[in-house]
Amino acid sequence: MTYCVAMALKDGLVFAADSRTNAGVDQIATYRKLHKFVIEGERVILMMTAGNLATTQSVLSLMRMRLNSDRPNLFGAATMYDVATIVGATGREVVARDAGQGQGVDFGSSFIVGGQIQGEPPRLFLIYPEGNFIECTPDTPYFQIGETKYGKPILDRVIDYHTSLDDGIKCALISIDSTIRSNLSVGLPLDVLRYRRGSFIASEHFNLDEHHEGFHQLGEAWSVGLRDVFHRIPNLKW
Amino acid sequence: MTYCVAMALKDGLVFAADSRTNAGVDQIATYRKLHKFVIEGERVILMMTAGNLATTQSVLSLMRMRLNSDRPNLFGAATMYDVATIVGATGREVVARDAGQGQGVDFGSSFIVGGQIQGEPPRLFLIYPEGNFIECTPDTPYFQIGETKYGKPILDRVIDYHTSLDDGIKCALISIDSTIRSNLSVGLPLDVLRYRRGSFIASEHFNLDEHHEGFHQLGEAWSVGLRDVFHRIPNLKW
Repeated sequence: MTYCVAMALKDGLVFAADSRTNAGVDQIATYRKLHKFVIEGERVILMMTAGNLATTQSVLSLMRMRLNSDRPNLFGAATMYDVATIVGATGREVVARDAGQGQGVDFGSSFIVGGQIQGEPPRLFLIYPEGNFIECTPDTPYFQIGETKYGKPILDRVIDYHTSLDDGIKCALISIDSTIRSNLSVGLPLDVLRYRRGSFIASEHFNLDEHHEGFHQLGEAWSVGLRDVFHRIPNLKW
Repeated sequence: MTYCVAMALKDGLVFAADSRTNAGVDQIATYRKLHKFVIEGERVILMMTAGNLATTQSVLSLMRMRLNSDRPNLFGAATMYDVATIVGATGREVVARDAGQGQGVDFGSSFIVGGQIQGEPPRLFLIYPEGNFIECTPDTPYFQIGETKYGKPILDRVIDYHTSLDDGIKCALISIDSTIRSNLSVGLPLDVLRYRRGSFIASEHFNLDEHHEGFHQLGEAWSVGLRDVFHRIPNLKW
């Protein structure tokens, strides 16, 4: 499995992803799930993937190979809506090619695609395995893909459109930490990216591995804080 | 869906269940999922159910109908292990009867069965749709069935075998509250039961509906406390 979460906030975008891929518990590997397509000063396109690894890799390879071609591509797209259309279509193309023999395998993949193209505000899309997609709005300013349930309560309790980017990152990391503690199929290292509205650069991209002191402290502080709140809440009166 | 959680702690057992049943979002109803088979002073058997409602109701009806028969039954069982065997066998019997025509319906149900019979300590079992089962041990002293993922992180962070019964109930309620906030298919009222080791009565059984002030306050205190901890944790240094 996988766990990725992205937010479209007032000040910009937050992307965070784990890097564990598994096909059964004895076939675990590390693959980055956060990918960037950037023309500095003009467009920043960010993408996270979950689902069939063969499909997601092929989709990314095809999109990179076509960047300077005549076909619709991510560097030619005029809007983020067009970008989402291209990702969805490429996903359908790969599944149609590979799923021919069926064999009961799930070839589907989900994508979170976000970014900003000159002339538009930052936008964020969730692309389903079927290739259709939805866009994030201020009412619910985040998307998750992969193993989403463990880390959802903290997002629902903390995040709204006016949350700062740094608080968004902190919340995404706590959400991922909760997921890692409860589910073996999600694991370090993490990819984290902070995109400031209107900056058109994707340089605030951080990697957190098991030696990262700050992430470790964050998880510990959260655990200790939770237990503290828990013990301070009075028992129910019947 | 459904969410039930039970704990086997040093001082006894905790059972908590929501009461929402749904087949699609336009067919939602309230059904109790916590059931008791009690001979005061001699045995307390508690059961929670998740999965196909037709199956769980039939299993419970058959077990009640057979209580004073010659067949293996819950009032005749010498141990909680025998109780778990009877529940598993009755589940298999109902599925074998009803699933004959297939039709792509999932007839399976899961059960959490716990309690105490004179001569034994309290015991807790999780019975799978296939009728086989596992028993709770002090290393991981809880079981969940139904929509389990949203409420698991708080259990993993707070509960161990030495947790008091009242803290166990508080944690179960927070776990259910987190699930209710993130998933529509889990809802009030709740059934909560506290069983003290060696008491052989099941009278500490409480019902919490939307008008229960204490449960409302518990959820609010948890939300406020979480947000407070969140804002006190410093942002990550990169």
